[in-house]
Order: sequence, then structure tokens, then C-alpha cells
Amino acid sequence: MKKITIFDSTLRDGAQGQGISFTVEDKLKIVERLDRLGVKYIEAGNPGSNPKDLEFFERIKRIKFKNAKIIAFGSTRRVNCSVGEDANVKSILKADTSAVTIFGKSWDFHVTDIIKTTLDENLKMIYDTIFFFKNKGKEVVFDAEHFFDGYKANPEYAMMTLKAAFDAGADCLCLCETNGGAFPQEVFDLTAAVVKQFKTTIGIHCHNDGGMGVANTIMAVQAGATHVQGTINGFGERCGNANLCTIIPNLQLKLGYKCIPDENIKNITSLSIYASEIANQVHDETAPYVGSTAFAHKGGMHIDAVNKNSSSYEHIEPETIGNYRRILMSEVSGRSTILSRINEIDSSLSKDSPETKLIIDRLKELEFEGYQYESAESSFELVIRKVLGKYEPFFDLREFKVIVNEPSINNENSSAMIKVRVGDQEEITAAEGDGPVNALDNALRKVLIRFYPKIKEMKLTDYKVRVLDSATATAAKVRVLIESTDGKGIWTTIGVSTDIIDASWRALVDSIEYKLIKDKEN
Amino acid sequence: MKKITIFDSTLRDGAQGQGISFTVEDKLKIVERLDRLGVKYIEAGNPGSNPKDLEFFERIKRIKFKNAKIIAFGSTRRVNCSVGEDANVKSILKADTSAVTIFGKSWDFHVTDIIKTTLDENLKMIYDTIFFFKNKGKEVVFDAEHFFDGYKANPEYAMMTLKAAFDAGADCLCLCETNGGAFPQEVFDLTAAVVKQFKTTIGIHCHNDGGMGVANTIMAVQAGATHVQGTINGFGERCGNANLCTIIPNLQLKLGYKCIPDENIKNITSLSIYASEIANQVHDETAPYVGSTAFAHKGGMHIDAVNKNSSSYEHIEPETIGNYRRILMSEVSGRSTILSRINEIDSSLSKDSPETKLIIDRLKELEFEGYQYESAESSFELVIRKVLGKYEPFFDLREFKVIVNEPSINNENSSAMIKVRVGDQEEITAAEGDGPVNALDNALRKVLIRFYPKIKEMKLTDYKVRVLDSATATAAKVRVLIESTDGKGIWTTIGVSTDIIDASWRALVDSIEYKLIKDKEN
Repeated sequence: MKKITIFDSTLRDGAQGQGISFTVEDKLKIVERLDRLGVKYIEAGNPGSNPKDLEFFERIKRIKFKNAKIIAFGSTRRVNCSVGEDANVKSILKADTSAVTIFGKSWDFHVTDIIKTTLDENLKMIYDTIFFFKNKGKEVVFDAEHFFDGYKANPEYAMMTLKAAFDAGADCLCLCETNGGAFPQEVFDLTAAVVKQFKTTIGIHCHNDGGMGVANTIMAVQAGATHVQGTINGFGERCGNANLCTIIPNLQLKLGYKCIPDENIKNITSLSIYASEIANQVHDETAPYVGSTAFAHKGGMHIDAVNKNSSSYEHIEPETIGNYRRILMSEVSGRSTILSRINEIDSSLSKDSPETKLIIDRLKELEFEGYQYESAESSFELVIRKVLGKYEPFFDLREFKVIVNEPSINNENSSAMIKVRVGDQEEITAAEGDGPVNALDNALRKVLIRFYPKIKEMKLTDYKVRVLDSATATAAKVRVLIESTDGKGIWTTIGVSTDIIDASWRALVDSIEYKLIKDKEN
Repeated sequence: MKKITIFDSTLRDGAQGQGISFTVEDKLKIVERLDRLGVKYIEAGNPGSNPKDLEFFERIKRIKFKNAKIIAFGSTRRVNCSVGEDANVKSILKADTSAVTIFGKSWDFHVTDIIKTTLDENLKMIYDTIFFFKNKGKEVVFDAEHFFDGYKANPEYAMMTLKAAFDAGADCLCLCETNGGAFPQEVFDLTAAVVKQFKTTIGIHCHNDGGMGVANTIMAVQAGATHVQGTINGFGERCGNANLCTIIPNLQLKLGYKCIPDENIKNITSLSIYASEIANQVHDETAPYVGSTAFAHKGGMHIDAVNKNSSSYEHIEPETIGNYRRILMSEVSGRSTILSRINEIDSSLSKDSPETKLIIDRLKELEFEGYQYESAESSFELVIRKVLGKYEPFFDLREFKVIVNEPSINNENSSAMIKVRVGDQEEITAAEGDGPVNALDNALRKVLIRFYPKIKEMKLTDYKVRVLDSATATAAKVRVLIESTDGKGIWTTIGVSTDIIDASWRALVDSIEYKLIKDKEN
């Protein structure tokens, strides 16, 4: 089994993604999870370009890691500047990591037209900087920026930049497909040429502008690269970096390479979701391996086949990666697919139990009304519980009233009054919000927290609205999906009504009840 | 320049994606856009499995297309059933298209373990069904399901299934990478083997479970496949199908193949956004070529370099594909593309007129707020008119108040009071509705009809809601799209706000104003 070194750049190149901004706390949390996963290098920032990063490197020094080395990243010395005097080089040194990444130009056009110096000076910049850090006892990765475009423009020069780094003692020559526009076959061929020429560790760093980030990485590994750079969820500038959550399982589960300890592969899905949450990005539901629909089946024929043998429409067992199969609950799914969900709640029921028929009938009624449980499994569980009598309401709604004013009196134009009963106690309260649904959401939590303080742990993480039969315009039915989390799990609930307030209300109530049921049972 | 035939399956395999459900109207709209793009085949449904599809095929018959052929999709005849008696075959025939896709099993395990018949009977099923449709004068594409997994398990048998289809007269043998887990090199090798053996059109149909959907398709083309199946935005089951919005530009702009007329390449971005809107899916901002951040630059160094020479950090010119570069803080956009819209209202304005700059600035502001005019051209026209001073409001809103009661007093749980001023007259009224938006819609029409009786002619025909930045849950911004008609024209307007009532209000007002402007001018 060939060993691959995983080099994570979520906190450095990943942080270039639009809308991503990590605090020092965020970074520490992600580093901790990456170390547990078994990643070898964590490139955690560019201390020369970001003062926030220096605080991070200060704090990370005190932490011991099981697997990972922390890496500071920065460029070669500036044009015509002595290495020791270069501000950026000094910042990298100040980060005080045992390993560093130095990036330099491998494309002649960038040397002459962007940093505007001679080809010879650029080679010296690479050599001097790497030699300097090797002299300080650091492990050094050389990132050959634009290597592939550079090679296509001027192969001799691109190779000379690698040679400068190699001669200065670089521990790894990493080939960067910086603009993300190369194709698998050329990445394979050029990587193979480098592997042949340099007897040292060759790395690969790809971007995704042609949709080839992962494929190019795989081809480079097949050509002999043993050091793989990427980011969790493919976070990164433009179309993102090569996605480690796809690369690691591809290499380790299917191509016979070893990237991380085998027992940690099953933690990739939860790490992927966790990183999205920290980065405040919606988790890509169609992401290979880790997406919530990656093993979801909708077509009736496919569902039948997967029930007979999962390999009929799945390339791996979802559990291997910590994900799971979802049989999308819809009118097309047969009785047996629904039964497996029922058996999670009551294992004694069979396909022919009268309760099973009652549940299926109820499901059909609800689907006719516009409910659709393919992505609202938690609401579906509540439907099953209600039919089976394994449900008791946690509160009764007495009434609510939502008022929207235009022009708004302050910035929050909506207010909601709500009255509920829990046991023999009644409680009434009110809250404001940005729009009527937000006001109602705020009021409902406020009125229930007295009875169920654990509601504080949960927050809504996603809210979707779909207009059904939209041709009836503003009187159309709407379907609301709400995703919630309490830090331990993620669940999705649904509500349908011709009134968006009412639809949201139903999904909100399901979400809170699901949380309370789970807490009670665990 | 080698010619590639593009076969779009957005409406068939794409519709298997979670949360996607196209109405007949939706399908007709997408077909119209695909035809304009220059796609050769549009696989539009499976008439045997979905009765809704039959209505679609009935209606599509009456439409003439410039470029595209419509395809009905279905399986081979059932085990031990005569072709003419097979219900599914009859449905395909009933769709009455000039071309059909027939899928059959190419993996021995699927034959013996899933459909549970003999290897020989499966070959007959393929042969009989294709022969039947060829005899009816149809063009026939054979989708060899699981061809790659099948070949790896039993190469002789996989090839025999192709031979059965070939012998029966299939016009194209399409190799399906159904489970989406294959790698580029093996797809290349197996495709090349098929191309060598069969002197006919070879197709490729990939899925994305290993993140290789696009790469595998490209490799198959490089191995000699000339017919490419995929979906807009990669819509499809699990991790989706191969994404045509990445494949077409990769092949045509960079690898020297011809997929669609050159002048249409620039329409791919808008088609991609349009399809997301119709499917009510969030448009993937990091999507290669067409995503809103595909050419967005955040790193300071990168911005500097791109300003010196865009090819320093961009693999293509974004305008080629109808997208544009986004530089944080100092946005620059495609002036000429917007100019054509401006000239519809004032033909005297040029690219360099100060008014053009004002409109582009206003557009940027609105886009930043979440407006998006791709599918709301009437609201965009109102923006242009407002900037040019070619607009006067038809009424002033003084105030409105919307109240939602639960439990509802009658079936209509919402009521709205509204007060407007027209000229020097004020009018106040109220109306009830099924939900707050419907109540407000009813009240607004009621209060205006006294002044503008022609409002009676118009009705709303479509209402869509999209949650933006949905991770902020019920406080998220929503985008409302309203489609209206007065029997003479159809127009779409947009509103954005954190409050759904306010967003709907803006779209409603635009819709009514657009109608009144058109009536006044004609």
C-alpha cells in the first residue's frame, strides 16, 4: 500500500474562498479536528499577509499534536532584497513552525510581466529563500506556482525553478495547478516528467476552475506524486481547491493508497459538515461521499435494486465514510423501503402489520397535501410516531397573532404574540423579528425556554421555501423546510400550507419536538 | 475541429435530483432554452414511469425546434414479454418522438441478481426492443447501463450487450458510468476499446459519485466518444450527472471540439442560472465557468496580478462564457451586455454615456442586495427607467398592515389593510386572504382598481420564493419572483428583502407598474 502525505490548506488557501473568514478560535477548532483525522501537514496561514495569523501561531505553539505539523506559508524573498531583510520572510520565521511552505514563480510570464524581474533573479529568489529556511533547520515545501501553465509556456525554465528549490534543499517540490484550467492527461504527463527528473518528494496542488481539481490530483498521484495538497470541502478562491473529502476516500478506499489511518476514514463526513458549519457555508448536499444526498435514491427502480443489493447503484458502502443511505420517502418508494424507517422506531412491525398500512396511508394523504419527506426525515419520524401512538405533544398552542407594519416602526417590522399551554400552566409572550416568520420563531423559543431550557442548545441552520402549484400565484401552497442543529446532530423538518406563516410554524414545531424527543430518549 | 453531439438529460435524469420536480410548463421553458443554445438531443422524460410526462409529450409535438430533437426514454422490454405487449414500450411509442433512448443492462450481476433472468434473455431484450423501434422508423440511442462496472466484472458479456444493440440497428451506443465511481484512466481505456470494436457513434453518460463526472466525460471524448450526455448544472440523483455547463466550455473553448454554435457559448451562464431558477435550486456559486465566484478574486496579490494581466489567475476570459470578473471592492462588469437592454428603452445611449455608468452602478448595488435580473427582465426594465427618469410612480403607499391569526377565524387566516395616494386622492381599503401575501395582493388590487380599472385584466400566474444565505435561517433574505399576464403579454418581476411580505410587496408593485406603463405606451 503506497503512502500518501496529506497536506491540508483549508485555513490558508481555503480561507481565500468568498464569504469565508476564520477567527483564531475557528482555526484552533479545525486544526484539532484535522489532527485527529490523521492529516500530516496543516498549512494554517500566511503570517506575512495577515496579522491575525500571528496571534494564531502564537497560540498554536502551546498545543501538542498527535499527527500533524503546523505550516506557515509565504512567498520567496522580494526582488533584489536580501533574504534576512525581507519583511515577509521575517514574519514566517516569527511564526516559529518546524515546517514552512515557500511559494515561487515557475511561469516565465509571471516573472517578467507580473513581478517584473529577470528570469535569473527569480531563480535566485527561490534558491536564497529555501536555503535560508533550511539553514534555520526547517522542513521546507516548495510550492511551484503555475507550474503546469509555466511548463506549457517554457518547459526548460519551469524545470529550472524546481531545480533551484531542489538544490537549495527543499524537502518537497509541489507542483501547483494555480489557474485550475489543466486537464487530467496533461497533469499526468507533466507530473511523470518531474517525478522522473527529481529524486525527492513530489507534491500536487490543484484548483477546480475546469471542474478537474480532484481528477487532476488523482492523475498526479497515479503519475508518482506522493504529497497531496487540498482543502476540506474544496473551500478556496474562485471555484475552489481540490477537495480532500473526495480525494482521500478515492485514493484510500478505491485505489490502494494510504492517506490517513483506516479507522479514521469514517470520520470524514462529520469533519466535512463541521468545517462547513465553522466556515458558515451551506454544506453541499450533492458532494461526493459526504453530501447528504450522496447515497440518496429516488427512482423507484433504483430503490428496488439497492434493496436487493446496495452495490447495484452505489459505488461504496456509505457507512465506510460515516455517511448513510437515504431512501427518499416519496409516493414512488415501495412499502419495504418505508418499513426500514418504521423499524428504527418499532422493530416488531412487519411489512404486513396493520400499523404499517396505516402509516403508508397517512404518508399518501400527506404527500397529496404537498408534503414531501425525501429531505425531511425528522418530520417523517414524527408522522410514524404519531400513527403508532409513540408521541405526546410537548405543548399546546392556544393562539398566536403576527403583525407586519409598513412602514416599519423600527428596523424590525414584524411582531408576534404567542400563548401556549404546557401541562396545566399557560404562558404568553411576544417577540419582534425581521419579517413575520422570524418574529414567530423568536416568540416560540422565548415562550418555551421556561419549560424546556435545552431549546437554548439548538439553532436553525437552514430555511428553504418552495412554492408548489405556483400557477395559483400568491394563494399557492408553500412547502417550508427547516434544518436545525444542537451541535450533536442535524435534522430537517417540513411544513406545508397555503400560508407561509402556517407552513413555517408546522416545520418549527416539528423541529422543536424532534429535539425534545431525542433528548428524552438519550 | 471535431464535432461532438450534445445530449441533454436535465428533464429526465436531472429530474431525479433531490428536491427537483418540474411541471409541464417548467419543462417547456427549459426545452425552449436548450433548443436556442443549440443542443442536438433533449431527453425529456420517461413516459412509462410518469404520467405527467405524457401530457408533456402531447404538448411538445406542436412545437417546431431550430436545433433539437426531443427524446423519450425507457427501458428494454420486460423479461419474457413480447415487445409489442410491453406496457413501457407502448408508452414510449405513445410519446411519438422521432428519437428514443432505450436503456439495458450491461453488467452480468444486474441481469442475474437484480432483474433475475438469464444472460441470454437480457441480450434478447436489448435486441428485440431496439429492433422494434428501428422498425417503427425511430432513431435509437442505446444506453448501456453500468457499462464500466460491467466491463470490469465480465468484459466479454458487456461487449455482447453492445453488440446486441449494434446488430439491432442502434444509432448510438452510449456507455453509462451509472454508479459514478470510475476513474479517468479506466474510462479512457474502456471507451477506446469500444471505439476500436464498433464502427458507429459511441456515447458517454457519467455520474459524479467520485467527483469525476466531468473528467471522465472529457477522457471518454479524448478516447473517441462523440456523443455526450449530461445535465445543466449537473442536476441528478445522488451526486448528480456530468455537468454540461462545465463540459461544453472545456471541450469547445480549450480542447478544440465543437459542441454548439460558437456564438452561443456566451449564453451558457445565463442558461445555467435560468435552469436553477426553474428547478428552484440555489445556483452553485463556485461552479466552474458559470458560478458567481468562478472569476472572483479576493487575495490582494491575485487582484494586482489580474489587473496587470487577467490570464495570470484566470484560465479563460469570463466574458467568453457570459460570466464576468468580480474584484472585491472595485467591481467591473460587462458594460456591453447590459447596453443592449438599455437601448431598448433609449437607443441614443452608448457604452460610454454617463447614464450607462449610472445604470451599471445601480445594478451592482441591487445585485449586492440579492437582486438578480436573469429571470426578472421586467423589473430590470423598471430599474433602467428609474435611473433614466423615464418613470413616474402610479401611486404612493401610505401604509399597510397585515395580520395573521392562529387559529384562523374563518378559513382565511390573514387580513390586510392598505392606504395609498394617487394624485391628490387617498383611498383606504382592506381584504382577506389565504396567508399574508395573498391578503396583501388582494388588498392592493382592490385599492387601485378605482384609479386603474385595467388592473382587472391582469392576473398573477406564477409565484416563486428563494431563500438566499439560508444559513441565517428565518432571518435570511428571500427573493420573490412573480410572473403576471394580462392575456397579451407575460412578465416577471422581483423583490428582495429579509421579510417575505416586503419582498412580495416589491415584486407586486413592479408587476402592476409594468402593466400600467405598457398600457400607457401602447
